[in-house]
Amino acid sequence: MTSQTELALFLRQEFPQNKSTIESVGDRMATVRHPVGVAELRPGGTVAGPVMMAVADVALYVAILGEIGIVPLTVTTSLNINFMRKPASDRDIIGVCKLLKLGKTLAVGEVTIYSEGVDEPVAHAVGTYAIPRQPPGIEHNHPSQRAATGQPP
Amino acid sequence: MTSQTELALFLRQEFPQNKSTIESVGDRMATVRHPVGVAELRPGGTVAGPVMMAVADVALYVAILGEIGIVPLTVTTSLNINFMRKPASDRDIIGVCKLLKLGKTLAVGEVTIYSEGVDEPVAHAVGTYAIPRQPPGIEHNHPSQRAATGQPP
Amino acid sequence: MTSQTELALFLRQEFPQNKSTIESVGDRMATVRHPVGVAELRPGGTVAGPVMMAVADVALYVAILGEIGIVPLTVTTSLNINFMRKPASDRDIIGVCKLLKLGKTLAVGEVTIYSEGVDEPVAHAVGTYAIPRQPPGIEHNHPSQRAATGQPP
Amino acid sequence: MTSQTELALFLRQEFPQNKSTIESVGDRMATVRHPVGVAELRPGGTVAGPVMMAVADVALYVAILGEIGIVPLTVTTSLNINFMRKPASDRDIIGVCKLLKLGKTLAVGEVTIYSEGVDEPVAHAVGTYAIPRQPPGIEHNHPSQRAATGQPP
Repeated sequence: MTSQTELALFLRQEFPQNKSTIESVGDRMATVRHPVGVAELRPGGTVAGPVMMAVADVALYVAILGEIGIVPLTVTTSLNINFMRKPASDRDIIGVCKLLKLGKTLAVGEVTIYSEGVDEPVAHAVGTYAIPRQPPGIEHNHPSQRAATGQPP
Repeated sequence: MTSQTELALFLRQEFPQNKSTIESVGDRMATVRHPVGVAELRPGGTVAGPVMMAVADVALYVAILGEIGIVPLTVTTSLNINFMRKPASDRDIIGVCKLLKLGKTLAVGEVTIYSEGVDEPVAHAVGTYAIPRQPPGIEHNHPSQRAATGQPP
Repeated sequence: MTSQTELALFLRQEFPQNKSTIESVGDRMATVRHPVGVAELRPGGTVAGPVMMAVADVALYVAILGEIGIVPLTVTTSLNINFMRKPASDRDIIGVCKLLKLGKTLAVGEVTIYSEGVDEPVAHAVGTYAIPRQPPGIEHNHPSQRAATGQPP
Repeated sequence: MTSQTELALFLRQEFPQNKSTIESVGDRMATVRHPVGVAELRPGGTVAGPVMMAVADVALYVAILGEIGIVPLTVTTSLNINFMRKPASDRDIIGVCKLLKLGKTLAVGEVTIYSEGVDEPVAHAVGTYAIPRQPPGIEHNHPSQRAATGQPP
């Protein structure tokens, strides 16, 4: 398991544009928080869809790295998201990821997305990540893998 | 049909954070372009996944508004994206949307996403949008509708 | 709420080809069971993918009708499924649906699919259903609606 | 490339429950046909959703095997389908698959689904398949691979 501190440092160094912060990680789960300000809002006072997609993506990434260690080339291969309710314009977005499968080369997880403090979720996503195969003797936290197909968040 | 100039003006005014520009729109299609710079790149020199999700979302939005007029409360209800190849770090992202269905309350379209000038697509998305029902006598380009469930891009 | 007995009778009469039976329904959830025999198996002794898709679809349908009553024209508008583990060839398939949203015209739910008695799920699906709008004064359990777009299971 | 005759024989032998027949295969595409009779119909005279999911699944499978040879353990890992229009009750279902990516271990394709003779599609699916890795020196048409995660159609 990778600690929350290690993961937060990794995200800050390697994904400086990412605005989500880690609330908790471990036990095949992760919770992340994304602030909502002018840059996230749209006409009608709602949070932009791509903000929620980014939250889903990073929540999955954190949940997976929390289990397998810092493997930067772990990349998204697919994401499916359903938007269900209008998010609040004055509350942070919270993404709660639960891994459904963590195989050697593929991970699948779901992310329930909330406006902070509101019970009913605003969106729900399911994503898959490809985990690079390791050459024998190389541990997962050495980022010396060939590039897999897919997308880092 | 809404002209490309009208749509570009609308996007600029209402979605100032959006970085995609419209290359063409009409005939149930739209092509948008997203510049790739430091803000879009990730370790390994690839374009971030959420950038491509945002491109898919805006390409769908433009293709739909190109047909029905400026209906700001037309909102994404779902998006499914598959990442297939590593995008180039030095080429714009191009999203080509083709509508598969344009009903009165629901539109479905697919978006093929490219690194400019490369034949094989880097990603493929399918999205659904909810179109607000219009009261009788109200045309689609009056944004006086009740909020539908879902997300503007 | 519609009772399990009513729903079982409705499925038997209206969907005679359906092989899934209802284990439980209520509280925005439903559990269904699909027998696994020669007709469901594939080379390698695994259960066919479309069997699990059908289980996901009917579990969603039952969970929704359990809440809104017998509305036969409630139809699937989308389904996303991830296959995660090889199902057992000698165990029934169990689908557990939990509704994420139950709006007036749209429902969203997730279905976790198991080989009976095995903890780790074999597949996970998310589906959306369109619920026909009712004319004023008409209750939801009168199937006299116009056809909505989509698919009954 | 595998011939249509070889693939048809393989499907008949290995998937005797499958009702789809191959109309054409090659050039990273496949077209399959599914008859519509009493077993496929639902109240309201529409074709059942799982029938169309099965058509999407087999069209993908045939398109892939048409390129890589008979690799039975090539399995579906995900399927996303949108239902867009009501299919005709008296026309066969036609699925037209086009591969978007054919990698060594992963294939992605889209399937447009029609009621025969009707221009507007009734549904659209995107699916991913895992292709088992081959030991060096073993050709793809030897089915001696370890089981991959996922589902045969």
